[in-house]
Amino acid sequence: MAKVLTGKEENYAQWYNDLVIKADLAENSAVRGCMVIKPYGYAIWEKIQSVLDGMFKATGHSNAYFPLFIPKSFFSREADHVEGFAKECAVVTHYRLKNSPDGKGIIVDEDAKLEEELIVRPTSETIIWNTYKNWIQSYRDLPILINQWANVVRWEMRTRLFLRTTEFLWQEGHTAHATREEAIEETLRMINVYGEFAQKWMALPVEKGTKSPSERFAGAIESYAIEALMQDGKALQAGTSHFLGQNFAKAFDVMFTNKEGKLDHVWATSWGVSTRLMGALIMAHSDNNGLVLPPKLAPLQVVIVPIYKKQPELEKISAKAEQIKKSLEEKGISVKYDDRDTHKPGWKFADYELKGVPVRLAIGPRDIENNTVELARRDTLEKDTYPVAGIGDMVTGLLEKIQENIYRKALKFKEKNTFKADTYEEFCDIINNRGGFVLAHWDGTAETEEKIKNDTKATIRCIPLNGKEEKGKCIVTGKPSSQRVIFARAY
Amino acid sequence: MAKVLTGKEENYAQWYNDLVIKADLAENSAVRGCMVIKPYGYAIWEKIQSVLDGMFKATGHSNAYFPLFIPKSFFSREADHVEGFAKECAVVTHYRLKNSPDGKGIIVDEDAKLEEELIVRPTSETIIWNTYKNWIQSYRDLPILINQWANVVRWEMRTRLFLRTTEFLWQEGHTAHATREEAIEETLRMINVYGEFAQKWMALPVEKGTKSPSERFAGAIESYAIEALMQDGKALQAGTSHFLGQNFAKAFDVMFTNKEGKLDHVWATSWGVSTRLMGALIMAHSDNNGLVLPPKLAPLQVVIVPIYKKQPELEKISAKAEQIKKSLEEKGISVKYDDRDTHKPGWKFADYELKGVPVRLAIGPRDIENNTVELARRDTLEKDTYPVAGIGDMVTGLLEKIQENIYRKALKFKEKNTFKADTYEEFCDIINNRGGFVLAHWDGTAETEEKIKNDTKATIRCIPLNGKEEKGKCIVTGKPSSQRVIFARAY
Repeated sequence: MAKVLTGKEENYAQWYNDLVIKADLAENSAVRGCMVIKPYGYAIWEKIQSVLDGMFKATGHSNAYFPLFIPKSFFSREADHVEGFAKECAVVTHYRLKNSPDGKGIIVDEDAKLEEELIVRPTSETIIWNTYKNWIQSYRDLPILINQWANVVRWEMRTRLFLRTTEFLWQEGHTAHATREEAIEETLRMINVYGEFAQKWMALPVEKGTKSPSERFAGAIESYAIEALMQDGKALQAGTSHFLGQNFAKAFDVMFTNKEGKLDHVWATSWGVSTRLMGALIMAHSDNNGLVLPPKLAPLQVVIVPIYKKQPELEKISAKAEQIKKSLEEKGISVKYDDRDTHKPGWKFADYELKGVPVRLAIGPRDIENNTVELARRDTLEKDTYPVAGIGDMVTGLLEKIQENIYRKALKFKEKNTFKADTYEEFCDIINNRGGFVLAHWDGTAETEEKIKNDTKATIRCIPLNGKEEKGKCIVTGKPSSQRVIFARAY
Repeated sequence: MAKVLTGKEENYAQWYNDLVIKADLAENSAVRGCMVIKPYGYAIWEKIQSVLDGMFKATGHSNAYFPLFIPKSFFSREADHVEGFAKECAVVTHYRLKNSPDGKGIIVDEDAKLEEELIVRPTSETIIWNTYKNWIQSYRDLPILINQWANVVRWEMRTRLFLRTTEFLWQEGHTAHATREEAIEETLRMINVYGEFAQKWMALPVEKGTKSPSERFAGAIESYAIEALMQDGKALQAGTSHFLGQNFAKAFDVMFTNKEGKLDHVWATSWGVSTRLMGALIMAHSDNNGLVLPPKLAPLQVVIVPIYKKQPELEKISAKAEQIKKSLEEKGISVKYDDRDTHKPGWKFADYELKGVPVRLAIGPRDIENNTVELARRDTLEKDTYPVAGIGDMVTGLLEKIQENIYRKALKFKEKNTFKADTYEEFCDIINNRGGFVLAHWDGTAETEEKIKNDTKATIRCIPLNGKEEKGKCIVTGKPSSQRVIFARAY
């Protein structure tokens, strides 16, 4: 099997696209900007969903489901939301088709025009807060801790598989609280859940922080984000959690009687991650041979490939392979024994590398003699021979090691590509020539942020939560600043 | 807590609607015909999803995801599909909103009109077969065994929560095969999966059979269905599996090279169940006190309620309750200890009855003295006192008994309400005055079926798969018939 990917040093964007297609993760569909998520890609998404869903439930949330469509007028209710939110939406105007009078195909029935257009949800704050209005009367009805797994649509002009698509899959949490403090606590809880998920499951080190006012979610008082660094030095926003204050409660007239018997507006949060996480996962770890998947999210953790010339050899190998498969499965490891005779071992090796299977075992006639197995790690591409005895414990330990190693490698990369800049010249030089996260002082104004963006395409990714106080001067205006913020070019 | 439901004998439709609302399962949304599935209702749907998903995977299927939107022209490709399929669809015509010139709200941007309208999927055969075209060249690429969990939209004029809504959630399997035989085998496999799920998990006895030609899915060669009987004597189609022949492959030009090296069109199936199953589950078993849930699908299987007057009593009761909770959880039972002091025990009892929790335990001061617990079964409403010792095993066994009992009750109801009719007079009398399934001879023509429907509102639910050969005469025309078919009024 020849190399099927463009080298990532050669053309990173092409490498990414090749990888998504060739590893059977997703492809473009017949509908502009919408993707087909293929079974292998969807299996990874299912793992992500399952782990996150467990984390949401462990923090007290329940799932529910709200309508796909939102009446157009709902968007006008919260002033910042309608102003700030992109108006590129799919608009449903009619509800019936009819046969074309010329007998060729079907046309829209103009008699079936909706009185009010419906928008395919780009996010669900409006329809959900319109619903919460009927659920909340008293502090006893609070908090409401709900999450929704759903598809959303934002009419993007330039799309890239997983990273930016017109339709995408996501979860959106929408919570309602009696106090400001409780809502802020929830906002932070969820950005920490996302951070923990990124680190422990995706093997992805992230920076946690707040967004600058101009990058805030439309309608939020404060937006928190986790930001990851991709191998091309660009940042990727991997999850957000918003403190919405009383904005949506005011817009949708959601009031409650508090413990003191007084009427007050309800406090809100919302938080979400999407199939964009797939893009982050792919870009953060993979190489020119294909995907590198952290074992905890790999749909298939171990593959066993037989190497043989004659049928009697295969029979012995298969018996051994099934025995190993069983002992690995007993440890909770997902294993496939690939004895297809339609492909050569070399082709299989390359294909499983492309698909990022963390551990590959090969068994040949000599292994049968010696009761051994050849093991290859996807992350380091190292090969070695091991005794079959104790293989279950060995592979269990190795999968943990691989998970750890992938994380450490990504962490090292992030550290190596995080810079401090104290002058604007230095800043521009790093952004233009090296990429990565750049820590710099900023005067806190939208004007400066805008100038930097226009000059360099870099934006403020976040104001770090764990950033230490440090007096300095804005790299552009020289005005005083009390903390460095993280700049980067971003996806 | 006063009775909150309309009696089902009084007004069955109102009883159902009350139950869905009062048990917190779902409610109507601000968008015509679209429902909000509330956390408790969604928790049941999640259980249904999880079990079915496991059954699909065990039969070799993988999940994937295809676009929400389908280009309008795709619907015209398969002639029967466009003719037979309802044209009541949500049509997306524009992709942008803009601020209204009068400054009030937002309007549709007429400059952002789509060249070709997009239809929100009412079902995905067309977009999926357009995709499969690129995936299939040779018999080696077959079979393709894919399922999708998704939302779909059909613009219904009269909607009822879960039973018929404009947007609903479902799964749709779409498989591609090299031979006719294999596709038929798959179609049958999946209707059997649905039948097994209905029986073992939903405690719902169903009739399996084929649809008459006029009730077939648009584009299918043969449609199989499972049909359940509700307590008002009406039938409910709970799942369908379609053998699509080569119709969609021909419409979308999907050909493959078979083992003999010849080009042929691919054979197809599709199969699905939806949130309509929730309606079936609710209507089949519930009573005037509320939901009756089969333990295997109950989000909460056991609730423990303390009964006390003074605080020291509560402390002792709580210690005992936590001990019982732990021993039940160790058996894999989901348990809640409800020690809220905001509601009286009587209110809680009624509320958990309304929500269909299978087993309720109450612990009072006397139970502490005797080391006992009062147990109430939701299905029979029987109460009795049991020793705490061995409670884990006792409740495990009881949950199985309840599951079994709910099924037996539904089966008995179905048997009692399945009739044979040998004359049209008898037939009309049963349909009009008793309801239920009516087994009758039919001459096999659409005209007779239509006449019966016009006269009685009854339709052929299915031609039973396990129906025995029996020579007879059509109840309307007297023409010969070789098997009885099942008629009923239906949801």
